[in-house]
Amino acid sequence: MTNQDALKQLVGQEAVKFIKDGMIVGLGTGSTVKFMVDALGKKVADQHLSIVGVPTSKRTKEQANHLDIPTKDLDEVDHIDLTIDGADQIDKNFQGIKGGGGAHLWEKIVAINSTKNIWIVDQSKLADQLGSFPLPLEVIPYGSHQLFQRLVARGFNPVFRMINNQYVTTDSNNYIIDLHLHQIKDPQNLALTLDQMTGIVEHGLFLNIVNTVIVGQENGPKVLQVRP
Amino acid sequence: MTNQDALKQLVGQEAVKFIKDGMIVGLGTGSTVKFMVDALGKKVADQHLSIVGVPTSKRTKEQANHLDIPTKDLDEVDHIDLTIDGADQIDKNFQGIKGGGGAHLWEKIVAINSTKNIWIVDQSKLADQLGSFPLPLEVIPYGSHQLFQRLVARGFNPVFRMINNQYVTTDSNNYIIDLHLHQIKDPQNLALTLDQMTGIVEHGLFLNIVNTVIVGQENGPKVLQVRP
Repeated sequence: MTNQDALKQLVGQEAVKFIKDGMIVGLGTGSTVKFMVDALGKKVADQHLSIVGVPTSKRTKEQANHLDIPTKDLDEVDHIDLTIDGADQIDKNFQGIKGGGGAHLWEKIVAINSTKNIWIVDQSKLADQLGSFPLPLEVIPYGSHQLFQRLVARGFNPVFRMINNQYVTTDSNNYIIDLHLHQIKDPQNLALTLDQMTGIVEHGLFLNIVNTVIVGQENGPKVLQVRP
Repeated sequence: MTNQDALKQLVGQEAVKFIKDGMIVGLGTGSTVKFMVDALGKKVADQHLSIVGVPTSKRTKEQANHLDIPTKDLDEVDHIDLTIDGADQIDKNFQGIKGGGGAHLWEKIVAINSTKNIWIVDQSKLADQLGSFPLPLEVIPYGSHQLFQRLVARGFNPVFRMINNQYVTTDSNNYIIDLHLHQIKDPQNLALTLDQMTGIVEHGLFLNIVNTVIVGQENGPKVLQVRP
């Protein structure tokens, strides 16, 4: 295991301490979350916990099922107590960008339906200002090239996310466009602009959502309580 | 042919007069549009017009192809000169509700990419205020029951659109929720609220979009120029 992975594993283990018997827990997506789900599988088995996981992606669902963590679809539960997810960038006001893994639509749907949200990240994800990480948009394939031109016209530096010359598709069969904005001076205002553009299903700005951030550091995970 | 259908046919024929040789034309969806596409097929054949249709739904595409109207996908053209579509309700300020046929997402994407928009309707679609026609929302299936509860909490009277106990799915494989609002006092403000709700792909409010409305009346189609 690399040093980076060891830090992620410690963060994942720290996050799992917040999960109590009987909880309904949103399970995020990404490399740090993968370690958290591993730790949760161990905790559930060791302590015979009765918890239900609500996965935010098909791949997290597979991992949870493999570890015998019971899962339900979001629409099969009446609430979520706590969601643990990663983030791609977090600014000094604890606003975030997510969607580097292309799962931000389902992640946001789970997040806004959760009583509490914890983000688990390594220190490299913290920044004064958002924007050096490209902002992902999930977009409807129909007319997406016309949308792309409108994003160009606004100076948003859009790039379709491709792998091997194919469009990356999400779990909802949409495309991803990444906006290379470099700096986002007013995240609230940008969110409002993007919310109103037809063809954008959801953007990766997660504003006023996270309650607790756990940061992987060389001297151990640091827990930041950022919103009540 | 019923009297109602005869009026729709006259409106469709009137609308087709706006289509000139060489145009790229957005083709809407719905019962009145169906007569317009029939009339367009005849005009293209009779006058050997070179036009390209951009259909807003799979069923309009099939009809156009059947009538030998050449079609292209929205992303294969660089602009649309004119789109002719129906509307479910039009208020006195010529703001509209669309989506009764479940195609409002693609219809809106085509409309906002069109230089001019014509709506063809019968007189029953005109109202002082929007809202007696239920407002359609296209929504992401994932988490749609949680979204439904949030719409209930806001007093929006949501109803999932079902046929034979199955969810109606759109051409983008999403669900439809109809909001039974009865009256919409401030369409702009409602649009902004819905734009910002995660899980709603697109609502059926078409604001400041239509340029010309053609209304079917007993004494012949009436052409209203409503926006330059």
